[in-house]
Amino acid sequence: MDWKAELKERTAKIDENLDRLLPRESEYPEIIFKAMRYSVFAGGKRLRPVFLLEVNHILGGKTEEAMDFACALEMIHTYSLIHDDLPALDNDNFRRGRLTNHKAFGENVAILAGDALLSHAFEVMANAAARFSDGRGIAAMQAIAHGAGVYGMVAGQVVDVINDGKKVDADTLRFIHTKKTGAMIEGAFLAGAALGGANDATKEILQQAATKIGLAFQIQDDILDVIGTVEELGKPLHSDEKNAKNTYVSLFGLEASEAEVERLTAQALEQLESFGSRSAFLQELTKHLVGRRK
Amino acid sequence: MDWKAELKERTAKIDENLDRLLPRESEYPEIIFKAMRYSVFAGGKRLRPVFLLEVNHILGGKTEEAMDFACALEMIHTYSLIHDDLPALDNDNFRRGRLTNHKAFGENVAILAGDALLSHAFEVMANAAARFSDGRGIAAMQAIAHGAGVYGMVAGQVVDVINDGKKVDADTLRFIHTKKTGAMIEGAFLAGAALGGANDATKEILQQAATKIGLAFQIQDDILDVIGTVEELGKPLHSDEKNAKNTYVSLFGLEASEAEVERLTAQALEQLESFGSRSAFLQELTKHLVGRRK
Repeated sequence: MDWKAELKERTAKIDENLDRLLPRESEYPEIIFKAMRYSVFAGGKRLRPVFLLEVNHILGGKTEEAMDFACALEMIHTYSLIHDDLPALDNDNFRRGRLTNHKAFGENVAILAGDALLSHAFEVMANAAARFSDGRGIAAMQAIAHGAGVYGMVAGQVVDVINDGKKVDADTLRFIHTKKTGAMIEGAFLAGAALGGANDATKEILQQAATKIGLAFQIQDDILDVIGTVEELGKPLHSDEKNAKNTYVSLFGLEASEAEVERLTAQALEQLESFGSRSAFLQELTKHLVGRRK
Repeated sequence: MDWKAELKERTAKIDENLDRLLPRESEYPEIIFKAMRYSVFAGGKRLRPVFLLEVNHILGGKTEEAMDFACALEMIHTYSLIHDDLPALDNDNFRRGRLTNHKAFGENVAILAGDALLSHAFEVMANAAARFSDGRGIAAMQAIAHGAGVYGMVAGQVVDVINDGKKVDADTLRFIHTKKTGAMIEGAFLAGAALGGANDATKEILQQAATKIGLAFQIQDDILDVIGTVEELGKPLHSDEKNAKNTYVSLFGLEASEAEVERLTAQALEQLESFGSRSAFLQELTKHLVGRRK
């Protein structure tokens, strides 16, 4: 299987649907739709929607039923990046080598573009859920809302922000990572599971795999920040260290962090193997995330 | 009917349920839950939830089925106020006589408290919708999402912000008012209509009434800013004028603005009269909104 070509095809399909679901730039008031699209189409990996669609697919669900939820997940992810970059939070001028939203459109529009993407994501999901004759659409929305919400991504964001510049302990760092990044990846898996009609046992396996993948993904991000280069990442080298950000590498060292990524990935793969060959693509993707250099 | 005592009882019930639905202040990370509650319990009129519950009630719907949607609507309204007050937007230090959220908790927490309230509102609604055996819950969520979203409140907010300090024409001001304030009041009426199982003709009447009430309410707000006092409003007199905000009064004058409020209210009341005595409370409330002094 040429899984990289396959991934490229899938992300292109997600991009097409994001384009369909987002308001046109020519609509009034233009600036907000330009700002929303600027960040949505800024070269994201579409990891969360790919996970959602693939889990749904493995369980026998239809991709066209799941697509709007996948795109909504990406809109929510994008809003979180826009707000995270704001001067009052991380104060970043660049992301993926481009100006951040508030640098390109001003802080007022950037705040509203984030609000707009979060609101639109739920509008898209509510409309999609209304097309189901059973409760799968609502269940998917519940999973995504929980991942994005006050017990998920927002909680991680808050703990990260209030500890900015302070050295945190291992438990706090794990809370930040599992909530800020992990919760939305769990949301992707559980929404896919809901749409695919998974039973409770299957959901449990998928959630456990998602938790491990999410944490491994974030630790790898920390590692890349140390060993990466500005060309590869599109942001200044060691930006997290410069801002005294708490990372796995600064707390546990590079070697232990790499070992942890390997360990978590191996455990996640073991869980995905329970789906047999149907999970081949998901397994390849998971392996790739560990080895990635950006 | 002592409708004022009735209103007080209803808002107390809404407050009880907001308390039930919002995370405890003792939960980790405490600061975000404190910040969310600080603004939710800051003396709001609970107008939008009261409208939703009353429309649902008039149509024969159960209040306990509609309550979570009503509270979610208030959470969304509160998030919009928190973000609106931020330094990059209206830069207000006080609201209803208290420090604004970012003055009390810092700009970073205030941005996240707004995000948290918006996210939590949809989590609450998704959970509530999952308890329905028919599509009424999703339909209510669709109405609220549409009112809060990029074709509703957010659009009004954007046009307001990008015209800050500039004189706008009547069409633009009407766009700001009908979207920024009106869209969420329409959302309240239409969500109540959906939960109460309204047919299309009834929805149409309710939407028309809501549009008129929303616009009258906002024009009255503009009027109060001119004639109000700092004691009555809890914010500096003429704050909109000082910031060169566009208001109905600055564009059309006080007399024409008052006449427009009267005209819109009379039309709305005419539409509400089609529900007969069942809409007595809603009619009283609508009349009160015109005569209000804060």
